[in-house]
Amino acid sequence: MLRFDIVSAVPELLTSPFDHSMMKRARDRGLLDVHVHDLRHYGLGKHQQIDDYQYGGGAGMVMMIEPIYRCFQELQASRPYDEVVFLAPDGERFNQSIANELSLKQNIILLCGHYKGVDERVRQHLITRELSIGDFVLSGAELAAAILVDAVGRLLPGVLNNEESALLDSFQDDLIAPPVFTRPAEYQGWKVPAVLLSGHEAKIEEWRYLQAVQRTRERRPDLLDKDEF
Amino acid sequence: MLRFDIVSAVPELLTSPFDHSMMKRARDRGLLDVHVHDLRHYGLGKHQQIDDYQYGGGAGMVMMIEPIYRCFQELQASRPYDEVVFLAPDGERFNQSIANELSLKQNIILLCGHYKGVDERVRQHLITRELSIGDFVLSGAELAAAILVDAVGRLLPGVLNNEESALLDSFQDDLIAPPVFTRPAEYQGWKVPAVLLSGHEAKIEEWRYLQAVQRTRERRPDLLDKDEF
Repeated sequence: MLRFDIVSAVPELLTSPFDHSMMKRARDRGLLDVHVHDLRHYGLGKHQQIDDYQYGGGAGMVMMIEPIYRCFQELQASRPYDEVVFLAPDGERFNQSIANELSLKQNIILLCGHYKGVDERVRQHLITRELSIGDFVLSGAELAAAILVDAVGRLLPGVLNNEESALLDSFQDDLIAPPVFTRPAEYQGWKVPAVLLSGHEAKIEEWRYLQAVQRTRERRPDLLDKDEF
Repeated sequence: MLRFDIVSAVPELLTSPFDHSMMKRARDRGLLDVHVHDLRHYGLGKHQQIDDYQYGGGAGMVMMIEPIYRCFQELQASRPYDEVVFLAPDGERFNQSIANELSLKQNIILLCGHYKGVDERVRQHLITRELSIGDFVLSGAELAAAILVDAVGRLLPGVLNNEESALLDSFQDDLIAPPVFTRPAEYQGWKVPAVLLSGHEAKIEEWRYLQAVQRTRERRPDLLDKDEF
């Protein structure tokens, strides 16, 4: 069982991503547990304040350290956490290998930045790891958290209906997955490659491997540099 | 006005991301229009089939070309589209510069892959661009589509409350944003840098610039290689 505690200033954004499809299956099977915490519950004063103007001036509100500290304290009093992750555009780049690694953990906190950012002291003292899902800026990290939970959650044994499926994914072997085709064999004049209709298993496997290598060469030569190709 | 048409096999996943926070504001202000289309409406037969086993054998279902073709036909009959994007892990890497580019378009289709993948003929003939949000595999591209809409949508003029905000984001100038701090000035013994409390504007600007350069050097030297630093 892998447990995620997502701490967010806008938890409403996370209503749908975990209630359908594969993530729902993972939760229903007791393999994945996702708790979304509204940072405002830990806010200050009667207005439950969680952000304030930044020191030194400038546009945008900054998330305060105090509500985050309180929230983490409460969570960490209940169980030990393997990682306290802050999702930030300048963090370590999240990839399949980190997804594999996180899928072996038990309890993970994900802190979602929102507004202009989070008080730097949170990053300095309260978290164990900073992850980024890419070189772009989002209105908040909630969707990045959802992506991380999805990428990690689907790797938990028993989540995918066919275990074979994840092993053949792109990136698991540093190769991009080969093209796939399904019925009809011809549509608008566009045909499925004959080999796939041949029923000749060895030829199909060979074709798929060569397509994977070729596609990786064309699109992601950087993945091949590590290997023997 | 920028319009996104998101075509998905699991549209329920996309209920919450656009109904709150900044995306809601963008829609309420008439700057962003997001339509989510259930691919099953274009499915085949009485079971509204949208996927089938892959030719050549192997685990996982493949999304069929026909429902996608029908859906695109209907959309494209109503308005011209600047881009028909397929979100795929082996596509061109989505980043802030592509977000800027897309924010200048008017109509964009986003096709979300799900299951094992989509019939290759869709990628060959029906789409104009393939984008990836990173080197990891998701259970479906719905969250990737949400990320793209968020990253692009927030760049539309009038979405952010203070226009200054987006220009100072990480990546817009190939520098990572400097640290930010807010009240209290001291918490658990951790202090805000004195310069930010000084009220000396020029010194604060200089400190922020140097912090941004230093942070970029430490975390993302690749961003600086393009520049004069």
